[in-house]
Amino acid sequence: MAKRIQVVEKILSANDRLAKENQQRLDKAGVFGLNFMASPGAGKTSLIEHMIQRLSDQMELAVIDGDVATSIDADRAAAAGATAVQINTGGECHLDAVMLHGALDELDLESFDLLIVENVGNLICPMSFQLGTHRNILIASVPEGDDKPYKYPGMYRGVDALVINKIDLLPYVPFDMGYFRKGVEILNPGLITFPLSCRTGEGLEEWMNWIKDALREHSRTKEPSTEE
Amino acid sequence: MAKRIQVVEKILSANDRLAKENQQRLDKAGVFGLNFMASPGAGKTSLIEHMIQRLSDQMELAVIDGDVATSIDADRAAAAGATAVQINTGGECHLDAVMLHGALDELDLESFDLLIVENVGNLICPMSFQLGTHRNILIASVPEGDDKPYKYPGMYRGVDALVINKIDLLPYVPFDMGYFRKGVEILNPGLITFPLSCRTGEGLEEWMNWIKDALREHSRTKEPSTEE
Repeated sequence: MAKRIQVVEKILSANDRLAKENQQRLDKAGVFGLNFMASPGAGKTSLIEHMIQRLSDQMELAVIDGDVATSIDADRAAAAGATAVQINTGGECHLDAVMLHGALDELDLESFDLLIVENVGNLICPMSFQLGTHRNILIASVPEGDDKPYKYPGMYRGVDALVINKIDLLPYVPFDMGYFRKGVEILNPGLITFPLSCRTGEGLEEWMNWIKDALREHSRTKEPSTEE
Repeated sequence: MAKRIQVVEKILSANDRLAKENQQRLDKAGVFGLNFMASPGAGKTSLIEHMIQRLSDQMELAVIDGDVATSIDADRAAAAGATAVQINTGGECHLDAVMLHGALDELDLESFDLLIVENVGNLICPMSFQLGTHRNILIASVPEGDDKPYKYPGMYRGVDALVINKIDLLPYVPFDMGYFRKGVEILNPGLITFPLSCRTGEGLEEWMNWIKDALREHSRTKEPSTEE
């Protein structure tokens, strides 16, 4: 068993080195990178479609989609109007920095402002493999249940923003928002959250504003003015 | 990379050997074992609660719950009246035969008829690690979306029965049952499916009848009559 753990550690530290290299590539090209993580079916792709529709007139978007199989998500992103690259992991339950490295080669990075990486649907492993993006985003969804922060603490602890999707289903499912938020607050105090519905559009504006602000702030800090 | 793959293969074949041993232990004790797999929040625990309530007068049930953290699910199974053992994987995204082996030690197997193993919420890795149970069951849920068979083919290909939970949400979410079933049929022709709602109770009777029949059939084949 000791040997196995050693191998895993070596893989992780090689991953972290390559993640840093990915981030340097993004920074050099002036691209702000987001890593979208979620359970299968929480609505990552739907949220990305809305972002493409609402933000494309203000910024250039690229999407990299990770899936075990198919190009359904990349096709949806492309149909919505973004440049999209599909990574098929062929059985792996998460993206890693090597996979992102290869996918970045497929993009003319200089021509984009925002890169959304849609990770494989999984609440556990994606958190262990940093990609080199600037923000980790978790998309939770109401029908998954209010106990998910307690059961998947690693994921909730490691993210920079939390979208709570499918709030239009609150009347139809047992979901105690207070209990859910309490779990989030214990694991990740002060985490910014965006309750919204990709179906009805409720809450989407707040999310889009946060993205625009984060992109502006990131550009400001990464490109210091020549006056300084 | 070749070295890494070799390690994974060794782990898998060691797992399969121990899975066989687990099955022999179950068979010797006359226990019929089910492996419940699903996305986080598809309703595995809710279905188990219903099974405990509706089947406990006809059979002795034990539940083994696998989670990254907490004993929420085992506590729910125990509260519903079953003997329940919790496995905390401490970060692993699936149960394996070693973990089940340890959990079986906690149960007086001879006193049970049915063992339900609730795997970690994940649509990818649990399928790669057989446990030694007699049937693999997938619990899908309507709000996850109708594209899941296409995106997680390994899981849909490897199961012996499919529960489609949360059908009470069909009026409120976009879910094309025909498209979903077509994906299932391509991957796993003739797979038996149980559309149901743990919330309203619709469809539960068909599922309970199938469990009772499967248990009866299993007992018959595993304990040949002395007349033969």
